[in-house]
Amino acid sequence: MRLEILPVPGIGHVTEGDDLAALIGGAAPWLRDGDVLVVTSKIVSKAEGRLVDVPADGPDRQAARDEVLAAESVRVVAARGTTQIVQTRHGFVMAAAGIDASNVDKTRLVLLPEDPDASARALRAGLRERNGVDVAVVISDTMGRPWRNGLTDVALGVAGMDAIRDHRGEVDPYGNELVLTQMAVVDELAAAGELIKGKCDQLPVAVVRGYLSAPLTENTDGARALIRDASMDLFSLGTAEAKAAGLLAAATLPDQPGGVAADRAAVDRAIAIVADVVAPGTVFTQVTDADVRSGLVATVPGWPTHATGLVLCSPPTPVGPVQLVRFGTDVQRLRTALAAEGVPTQLLPPPGGTTAAATLAL
Amino acid sequence: MRLEILPVPGIGHVTEGDDLAALIGGAAPWLRDGDVLVVTSKIVSKAEGRLVDVPADGPDRQAARDEVLAAESVRVVAARGTTQIVQTRHGFVMAAAGIDASNVDKTRLVLLPEDPDASARALRAGLRERNGVDVAVVISDTMGRPWRNGLTDVALGVAGMDAIRDHRGEVDPYGNELVLTQMAVVDELAAAGELIKGKCDQLPVAVVRGYLSAPLTENTDGARALIRDASMDLFSLGTAEAKAAGLLAAATLPDQPGGVAADRAAVDRAIAIVADVVAPGTVFTQVTDADVRSGLVATVPGWPTHATGLVLCSPPTPVGPVQLVRFGTDVQRLRTALAAEGVPTQLLPPPGGTTAAATLAL
Repeated sequence: MRLEILPVPGIGHVTEGDDLAALIGGAAPWLRDGDVLVVTSKIVSKAEGRLVDVPADGPDRQAARDEVLAAESVRVVAARGTTQIVQTRHGFVMAAAGIDASNVDKTRLVLLPEDPDASARALRAGLRERNGVDVAVVISDTMGRPWRNGLTDVALGVAGMDAIRDHRGEVDPYGNELVLTQMAVVDELAAAGELIKGKCDQLPVAVVRGYLSAPLTENTDGARALIRDASMDLFSLGTAEAKAAGLLAAATLPDQPGGVAADRAAVDRAIAIVADVVAPGTVFTQVTDADVRSGLVATVPGWPTHATGLVLCSPPTPVGPVQLVRFGTDVQRLRTALAAEGVPTQLLPPPGGTTAAATLAL
Repeated sequence: MRLEILPVPGIGHVTEGDDLAALIGGAAPWLRDGDVLVVTSKIVSKAEGRLVDVPADGPDRQAARDEVLAAESVRVVAARGTTQIVQTRHGFVMAAAGIDASNVDKTRLVLLPEDPDASARALRAGLRERNGVDVAVVISDTMGRPWRNGLTDVALGVAGMDAIRDHRGEVDPYGNELVLTQMAVVDELAAAGELIKGKCDQLPVAVVRGYLSAPLTENTDGARALIRDASMDLFSLGTAEAKAAGLLAAATLPDQPGGVAADRAAVDRAIAIVADVVAPGTVFTQVTDADVRSGLVATVPGWPTHATGLVLCSPPTPVGPVQLVRFGTDVQRLRTALAAEGVPTQLLPPPGGTTAAATLAL
């Protein structure tokens, strides 16, 4: 067994309305059943007319570009300076929604194909019709990624094969079940294609031969199978954006107890976290014993019955209006630290018979 | 031009102390100058004895594994359930520090090679000595990534070539300078190698032929060139972890004004954000005119001269001790919302002649 990665030279400049299957099929009459075509998304976009006119330079260019970017994006994932990482309408997370100004006139921008899976299917069908070959098609683009410098090519669309090769359920020679081995093989094929495309000038198509055997399987999921839902992603937001979201969450913290017994150590940690920033002499006392707690709670009308713990909050003395306001800010600091520990709270008046000036119901 | 991806069958099980250059050189006497060997990190780890003994199952196994994981990690990047994404001692960000329990006895775990670049250099030198060939070596491993389902193989170590191919400064046929085209070619080589390794059982080594030409260049950076410093990374922390960091930042908010004129619209936004959660009747009034401000500030001893704006904070009436504490928590909410807008604040007593009960210096 061996794989080959072959260039498809001679395709030349692609413009709107070009028949990609004819261009590629003509340039590569040697295509065989089972070949995987790796096609740079830009020529697909150009053939499909996914271009917009923009000023060649100046502030108007930036404004026009920003407008196009907003239209191509469903949400901003992270931003720093002029860099915006967004989720595209397709679901891909990438810089500037994949909008590209290279390999095109200075007055135009190239957008991603409208539906790269559909583009791949159309090209596969066109080559079957024109050249009589049963090939898979991967539409590829270049992307950055977190944590690692340098870009790699990955797949935006695919036809004629599954995006992911699933090894789950297989057992290794030692009897261990393979649990984490869903390989994104179309991304690896895109990367393999880039190795030869990046070596040659103006080479938008490569062929990986030997990886698949005809007859190929249709698949309906396409490269959408590669898109992880943001709710499942541990990195759905940039770090700075998520920190800002945490600050906003603190500003609008809900005012209600959790109703489940709070972790005593977590409450102690929260108290320790704010110890250095609250006014000296401020005392936060955790009350966890049910009997003591119910005795205290009974002295305050309207205490939530589902509160499972208390923190008595006492200001330093003497206490005037200015000190009470400061004390309130310190209580809110503690509430926020408790929230960071996953402990919700409700602010309530102090129980009678204590020196507390406020209480938090946990 | 064409590339070939060739399997190296017949290596068999690798155990501690094995001479990898002898094993690979013996299995592939057909190696040529300029070939790129893609070597699964696991056989490097095994040959180098990077294995630890753990119980085959039960809670002790998990505890032993956690201990190993902590020793292999410098920080936790994100965690959910039993999944931990960490930065390894090498600098790589990956699940479980790359510790693997597959393709090894149930009582052992395989760690990443101690220094994968050094392993690659040693193997390259060994093959030059033994087989007389000038080959590059890529040590590869399988990793997940944010935003995209499925795993791909990437490089942990490299010798005999640069990790990144830099196209910056090149100009496309349309006269546009290529600015964002540092390609992580060793990651693409690792991915290409996996295409054939993943197809065959127990195939830890592949060869990419045709990509490089001898004589190869030594490089000293190795795969370390791929590691992006966390301070430069927009995704240096998981979303949940960064949100928690934001909550913690709110709990320990510094108490000092910014000393630069605050964005008036940002202050208005912060006031609007907390409007629905503060006690009804609470009034926050932004004071930005310098003359009015200096008149107010003059009535409070100790006001910071570098404060560039004020927010007068007035509680609803009537005002008793319980209301003042609640008011303090609401003032702290506003301070937190201002911090989310990038506006630092200091809590101060109210100026004379106003109905405010507190003031924030901006």
